[in-house]
Amino acid sequence: MSIRESFTEYIHQLQDDICAQLESVGGGARFREDAWDRPGGGGGKTRIMRGDSVFEKGGVNTSVVHGKLPPVMQERLGVKHEDFFACGISLVIHPANPHVPTVHANFRFFELYDDKGNPVDRWFGGGSDLTPYYYQKEDVVHFHRTLKQAADAFGPEYYPMYKRECDKYFFNTHRNENRGVGGVFFDYLKADESRDDHFWLDFTKAMGNAFLPAYIPIVERRKEDEFTEDQREWQQIRRGRYVEFNLIHDRGTLFGLKTNGRIESILMSLPALARWEYDHHPELGSEEALLLEALKPRDWINNPL
Amino acid sequence: MSIRESFTEYIHQLQDDICAQLESVGGGARFREDAWDRPGGGGGKTRIMRGDSVFEKGGVNTSVVHGKLPPVMQERLGVKHEDFFACGISLVIHPANPHVPTVHANFRFFELYDDKGNPVDRWFGGGSDLTPYYYQKEDVVHFHRTLKQAADAFGPEYYPMYKRECDKYFFNTHRNENRGVGGVFFDYLKADESRDDHFWLDFTKAMGNAFLPAYIPIVERRKEDEFTEDQREWQQIRRGRYVEFNLIHDRGTLFGLKTNGRIESILMSLPALARWEYDHHPELGSEEALLLEALKPRDWINNPL
Repeated sequence: MSIRESFTEYIHQLQDDICAQLESVGGGARFREDAWDRPGGGGGKTRIMRGDSVFEKGGVNTSVVHGKLPPVMQERLGVKHEDFFACGISLVIHPANPHVPTVHANFRFFELYDDKGNPVDRWFGGGSDLTPYYYQKEDVVHFHRTLKQAADAFGPEYYPMYKRECDKYFFNTHRNENRGVGGVFFDYLKADESRDDHFWLDFTKAMGNAFLPAYIPIVERRKEDEFTEDQREWQQIRRGRYVEFNLIHDRGTLFGLKTNGRIESILMSLPALARWEYDHHPELGSEEALLLEALKPRDWINNPL
Repeated sequence: MSIRESFTEYIHQLQDDICAQLESVGGGARFREDAWDRPGGGGGKTRIMRGDSVFEKGGVNTSVVHGKLPPVMQERLGVKHEDFFACGISLVIHPANPHVPTVHANFRFFELYDDKGNPVDRWFGGGSDLTPYYYQKEDVVHFHRTLKQAADAFGPEYYPMYKRECDKYFFNTHRNENRGVGGVFFDYLKADESRDDHFWLDFTKAMGNAFLPAYIPIVERRKEDEFTEDQREWQQIRRGRYVEFNLIHDRGTLFGLKTNGRIESILMSLPALARWEYDHHPELGSEEALLLEALKPRDWINNPL
C-alpha cells in the first residue's frame, strides 16, 4: 500500500474511533455526517455534534482532495508543480462544562506530482493542543505527558521541538497571550538521510493515536463538575479569544477562506457562543487569573504551575 | 481656526451629542468614559455602554493622535512623510432587541507634515452603515434617505458614489454576503480644483450630523417590539457574521491589531454575544430568509425590497 493510501485509510479509521469514543463519554448525542464533494476533485466527511450535555459543539472532519494547486497555494508552498493530493483529519471540540477544556487536533498529508503523475514531494503535518478555561495541573500535565510519551518512541528530540512550535503558533499576538496551554505542532515532516517516509507516516499516526488517551481522561474527570453562570461567562469570554485566534491568525482558516474552501467545514472550529466584554480583567488571585498564568508557556512535564 | 482644530472640536462635540441622545432613548444606563494616552503622542476617549435594556453593548470613541508614522503605515498610505496627525470618532451600537439594527459610523481626518512642520497633505474619511437582523422597509429607506439628503446638499453625485463604496466595502467575501444594508462610505476626500479643504470639512461634518437623525427614529420605533428566544438566537448568529467581517476583512481593525493599536478600543466593535451554528439556513419564506434578501445591495430610495 502506498504512503498515501495508508494514511488515507488511517484518517478515516481515526475519525471513526474518535467519534465513537466522544459519543461514549458524551451525554447521548451522536455525530451527524455531512459528506461533500470538492468541485476540483475529492471531497470530505464533516461530522458535527451539537447541543450534547457534555459536548456543546464539536466537529471531527476528514477530507481527501486532489487536483491542480491554485497559484496562491503554489506560491505559499514555494513549489512549481501543480498536481497535488492532500488528506487530513481536523477536529475541534468545545465542551459545555467550563471545567472541561476545548481541544483541537489535526493530522495531514500532502503530496505533489510531476507532469507524468509521479510523486516528487510529500510531507506530513499536524498536532494537538488544549485550551482550558480553568487551570487543573493534573489535566495539563496528563495531556503533555501523553503526547510526549508518543513522540519519545521516535526519539527524545521531537516532543520538546514540536511543543515549542505549538506555543509559538497558537499565540494571539494582538493580545500578547497564548490561546491555550499548547501541546505539539509539526509541519513539513519530510524524508531525509536518516528518516524515510514510513518513519514520518508512523510518527504522525502515533501522534494521532495519542489524541484520545490525552484528552478523554480529562473529559471523564471533569464532565460532572459543578459550575456557575459566572464561570460559563468566563468560558464565553475565553471562547472570544479562540474566535480571534482562528479568524485573525490561523493560517489554515485564513487560507481556506481565501481559496474558496468549504466555509462551513472550516468554521466548524468556532464555538457555539463567544462573548466580548470591554477591557475585562479577572480579579487578582481568582481562578480566572490563575488560568491567565497557565497560558504562559512552560515545561509542563518538569516544572508545572 | 485651522481645519485640524475645527474637526477636532467637532468630533468631541459629536461624541457628546451622540452619547447624550443614545442615553436619552436608552433604558437608563450611561456611557462610562475611559481616557487613554498613546505612547507616541495623543490619546483618546473611549465611551462604553453595556447591559442597557435598549443598548446591549455600544462604544462611541474619539481619538486624537500625532507623532511619527510607523513604516507599515507609510507604505500603506504610499507616502514618504512621517510626521502625522489623525483624529476621528468611531462608534458601534449593538441593541438588545433583534428588531433594532446594529449601527456603525466613523468620521476621521488625517494630516501629514514636512520636516519643518508644514502640512503637505490632508484628507477626510468616514461613513455610516446599518446592520439589521430583521428587515423593515421603513427603517432601511429612512436610513438611506437621511444620508442621501445630507449628501445631496453638496451635489447629487456623492450619495450614489459613496453608497456604492459602502456596499463594496462591507462585504464578507468568504460568505458572498453583505454585512448589512449599507449606507455611505468615503475615504481620501481631498481638495482639488473645484473643492477646497473646507468643502470636505463641511461635507464630513454634515455626514456626521446626519447620523443621529438617520438612526435614532429607528431605535424609537422598534425598541419596544416583542421578540422571542429564537429571534435572539438569529441575532446572535448574524452577530457572528459581524465578528467575521471585523476580524477577517475590516481594514481599520486589522491595521490597528498589526500596529499595536489600543486593543480594547479597537475591539469594542464586537458584540456581547455571537453564535455559530453549523451550516445554518433560515426556512424558506421566513422573516430570517427575508433579511438575507435585504442584504443584497439595491437602490433603497427608488426601488426598495
